[in-house]
Amino acid sequence: MKKTQVNDCEDVLLSMRMIAETLNEVIKVLDREAIKAMIQKILEGERVFLMGAGRSGLVAKAFAMRLMHLGFSVYVVGETTTPAVQPQDVVIAISGSGETRSIADLGKIVKDIGSTLITVTSKKESTLGRISDITMILPSKTKNDLDAGGYLERNMRGDYRNVPPLGTSFEITSLIFLDSIIAQLITLTGASEAELKSRHTNIE
Amino acid sequence: MKKTQVNDCEDVLLSMRMIAETLNEVIKVLDREAIKAMIQKILEGERVFLMGAGRSGLVAKAFAMRLMHLGFSVYVVGETTTPAVQPQDVVIAISGSGETRSIADLGKIVKDIGSTLITVTSKKESTLGRISDITMILPSKTKNDLDAGGYLERNMRGDYRNVPPLGTSFEITSLIFLDSIIAQLITLTGASEAELKSRHTNIE
Amino acid sequence: MKKTQVNDCEDVLLSMRMIAETLNEVIKVLDREAIKAMIQKILEGERVFLMGAGRSGLVAKAFAMRLMHLGFSVYVVGETTTPAVQPQDVVIAISGSGETRSIADLGKIVKDIGSTLITVTSKKESTLGRISDITMILPSKTKNDLDAGGYLERNMRGDYRNVPPLGTSFEITSLIFLDSIIAQLITLTGASEAELKSRHTNIE
Amino acid sequence: MKKTQVNDCEDVLLSMRMIAETLNEVIKVLDREAIKAMIQKILEGERVFLMGAGRSGLVAKAFAMRLMHLGFSVYVVGETTTPAVQPQDVVIAISGSGETRSIADLGKIVKDIGSTLITVTSKKESTLGRISDITMILPSKTKNDLDAGGYLERNMRGDYRNVPPLGTSFEITSLIFLDSIIAQLITLTGASEAELKSRHTNIE
Repeated sequence: MKKTQVNDCEDVLLSMRMIAETLNEVIKVLDREAIKAMIQKILEGERVFLMGAGRSGLVAKAFAMRLMHLGFSVYVVGETTTPAVQPQDVVIAISGSGETRSIADLGKIVKDIGSTLITVTSKKESTLGRISDITMILPSKTKNDLDAGGYLERNMRGDYRNVPPLGTSFEITSLIFLDSIIAQLITLTGASEAELKSRHTNIE
Repeated sequence: MKKTQVNDCEDVLLSMRMIAETLNEVIKVLDREAIKAMIQKILEGERVFLMGAGRSGLVAKAFAMRLMHLGFSVYVVGETTTPAVQPQDVVIAISGSGETRSIADLGKIVKDIGSTLITVTSKKESTLGRISDITMILPSKTKNDLDAGGYLERNMRGDYRNVPPLGTSFEITSLIFLDSIIAQLITLTGASEAELKSRHTNIE
Repeated sequence: MKKTQVNDCEDVLLSMRMIAETLNEVIKVLDREAIKAMIQKILEGERVFLMGAGRSGLVAKAFAMRLMHLGFSVYVVGETTTPAVQPQDVVIAISGSGETRSIADLGKIVKDIGSTLITVTSKKESTLGRISDITMILPSKTKNDLDAGGYLERNMRGDYRNVPPLGTSFEITSLIFLDSIIAQLITLTGASEAELKSRHTNIE
Repeated sequence: MKKTQVNDCEDVLLSMRMIAETLNEVIKVLDREAIKAMIQKILEGERVFLMGAGRSGLVAKAFAMRLMHLGFSVYVVGETTTPAVQPQDVVIAISGSGETRSIADLGKIVKDIGSTLITVTSKKESTLGRISDITMILPSKTKNDLDAGGYLERNMRGDYRNVPPLGTSFEITSLIFLDSIIAQLITLTGASEAELKSRHTNIE
């Protein structure tokens, strides 16, 4: 692309330090009741559906993979064989702005169907924040106003204004948060796994 | 799934703190020469190709999106219209163990073609580490020996042994590292963008 | 799923015969001027973008792969590194009903940007049919009225009314039609490929 | 791409006629016992898994979508939340040559696990043909010897020799064949659906 001579990598280290710092700040302000309610809903749901656009969609998939590993019936909205959502299902939306059009539109349908809607977002006062049963706030320094509108639309228009600043990126925080939800789910479901195993050995 | 009563969320917070801590440790031991060499190769490559399996594949896609936003000609191996790799291209493999079979096999072909191969991994002494032009080590506490073999194969066999411990997950570290590479690239390429703009206003 | 005894496979053979018959009928009524105009636009476009939802999206990808093989700069809308659409690009929408919401919404944006929009559909009088520069009609016996609305939405609601009858399916006809466009493009671009080769040998 | 003047579209019509003709020939030589056995296995399997590379992978997805619509538990190998294959599952491989490396490798694992393996191919004497429980032959005029080897590998090397001739393409025939399998499955499962409905209304 460009023949610049790369003389240092200070921005790489600075950016990583900022992300670690931001993470520590986020941990302090997380709403513990919301976390508990979110985990409760995930455990109670018949099946779990994940949805998100762009990089938030990748975070949704990364979380879905882990849930599948733990034995959940889990689907990513938009994949080939994802079935219809039912009232007893839980749908988790990942959207930094809470305004990503395609995801907000699907969120409304989820509420029409009567399923539980959980949104992981940085904005409580947003379309998705207002209609969700649980809104899990991951505060972000980034002004996500730019993230509104349809994802594919903005992509098509070449509107990438949400790129920087990277040190406070919602996607990183949400990936770490959701992987930490998995840690809790391992603790919660792990016990019964041990039980199942011990019962299994007893029967043989 | 299960009707457990969720009474606390200490594991969530503990896991997030561990990830932040791990991140700070990783920053201290990063090989600055390797980072600079990696950025140099990305800038010099005709086009950039990303590849990875499973969650590492999602990290590869998240990085590819950002590179596209910055104006790079970038492709993800396995997507519909990804063209053939040419000698003047740069291929970046993301693999925690450096042994993921499908990615290691493709890495060998990349070297046959004569393209530059960069591997982001936690293991220098690995198949991908040994054949790469640049091996970017992101140290991880996780024993990634379990990550060896074909990804789809292990998935098919139900072999998810690499799930925990999550606090030290390679995928999180690599996502943060690569987003920080983007921060440096913005600095490096941003200057010329400003130049272009100033010239543009002069012409009008 | 079910323990039925399968005693015959007459429906399989009947369905295949119906598809072959439908195909022969479609060939008779194709608008040759539209086909020529479509090929002309594909050849003249700076880059080609394909879009479609559900099974039409798979047809779009199958066509995109072939165009890539022929040397076109081609992208599938929604994939990781698909860049912004520019006025000099050609966007091809695949939509049986011409009403698939997400695709029709993107079609409007394509026209806003000023790019060329080609729609392959079974309905001239449809949202996409009305706004497209070229509307390529592939007549279908299927009442595609059911195909209207957002694809992911209908999927989420479990609305699969467009499943049968399969003998007249738009997706099959469009895949065959687009693969036949490739046959024509091979003829049209093949000559210059031979030229390039002969020139290449002259230089060496 | 190129500023050629498009004066005719005879190749498009010729190619479509050839495909319709080929289709009629294929119907005549299909092995009815294999079709019945394939449908029987699909009905008896606990879950159905589809796999294929490149355009055959798109055909696999198109079939998987329809099976999902009919109420089957169906997964595409390689998608985000596809679970581990179990002995009581049925795995369907789509591979023109029967030699596509990644698919053949996975086929061997499927047999190790003890699941039922069905291959839809044009070559009985092939790696996948030899190890499958059912090999469904869709004869093709195309010499598919070129289709051997790893799909991503050949893509990476720019080896697209299997492009023409399109009139006899395995992918088109397999899509039509599999959609016709769906027609039979509708007949076979539809009856019980009606029964279920009538019972349902009786209960209310």
